[in-house]
Amino acid sequence: MIILGVDPGTNRAGYGVIKKNGDNISLLDYGCVEIKAKSDHNDGLLTVHNAFIKIVEKWKPEVLAIEKLFFFKNAKTITQVSEARGVIILAALKSSLKIREFTPLQVKQAVSSYGRADKKAVQKMVRLILSLNKDPEPDDAADALAVAICSANTRNF
Amino acid sequence: MIILGVDPGTNRAGYGVIKKNGDNISLLDYGCVEIKAKSDHNDGLLTVHNAFIKIVEKWKPEVLAIEKLFFFKNAKTITQVSEARGVIILAALKSSLKIREFTPLQVKQAVSSYGRADKKAVQKMVRLILSLNKDPEPDDAADALAVAICSANTRNF
Repeated sequence: MIILGVDPGTNRAGYGVIKKNGDNISLLDYGCVEIKAKSDHNDGLLTVHNAFIKIVEKWKPEVLAIEKLFFFKNAKTITQVSEARGVIILAALKSSLKIREFTPLQVKQAVSSYGRADKKAVQKMVRLILSLNKDPEPDDAADALAVAICSANTRNF
Repeated sequence: MIILGVDPGTNRAGYGVIKKNGDNISLLDYGCVEIKAKSDHNDGLLTVHNAFIKIVEKWKPEVLAIEKLFFFKNAKTITQVSEARGVIILAALKSSLKIREFTPLQVKQAVSSYGRADKKAVQKMVRLILSLNKDPEPDDAADALAVAICSANTRNF
């Protein structure tokens, strides 16, 4: 089973694609998509949507794993991240992916066995779990891989 | 010029389509799109996106006028409405509409000349401005028409 993990932020969305085969999890791809267009947040929505359409077409995942949003500094931030999240989920729905959502705590526990891991710790654990020879960067991409790993390790509901 | 006004909420998105011809504004269409799918908010995103693709194809507006989001009771609400807002804006961007955003205060002032109008007052003023023989219902649709009227009455920037 192929899982696409996504960590949407205000400026970019990290993504990570993994393959689950029995108990084995291996890396297929990871990276970042810029969300903010130079001129306009709205234009960025089209860019990020199209980028995720391409990622889905390329890797044909069965599942989109994505973090639930909780706390944000201000309404503008949560609005912009949610809009981006909406068009990313839409890209997945168009190819009939299952959408699985996890809290930040669930994601951190999935990779670090406790919920207070910082970004560096998440990168390191993702590296170990996927047997990479360096920490995945930037941290948005590492977080996206962590969400995908969380989904891989969670029993289907 | 044809303007599509939208008022996205948690359960449905009101829409209103008007035509501006010089100083004259006339009604073309209004209604509501259900956002919440029976089973899942995420499925609803695909439904609402496709519904707005159809509305845009039918009326070929040049502008999408949409309210900026400000205050919400909780993070879940603002997240869900923003996701819906994102996929609606995306539907407009796909047909190269201009996106124009207005604060709730701007919208109320555009139809009622003061910013404290309640939903009933907005419905009544929209009815008068568009010469309708009854108040547009539900209020989501009336609000969407008010956003479109606000855009029609605002000088292009």
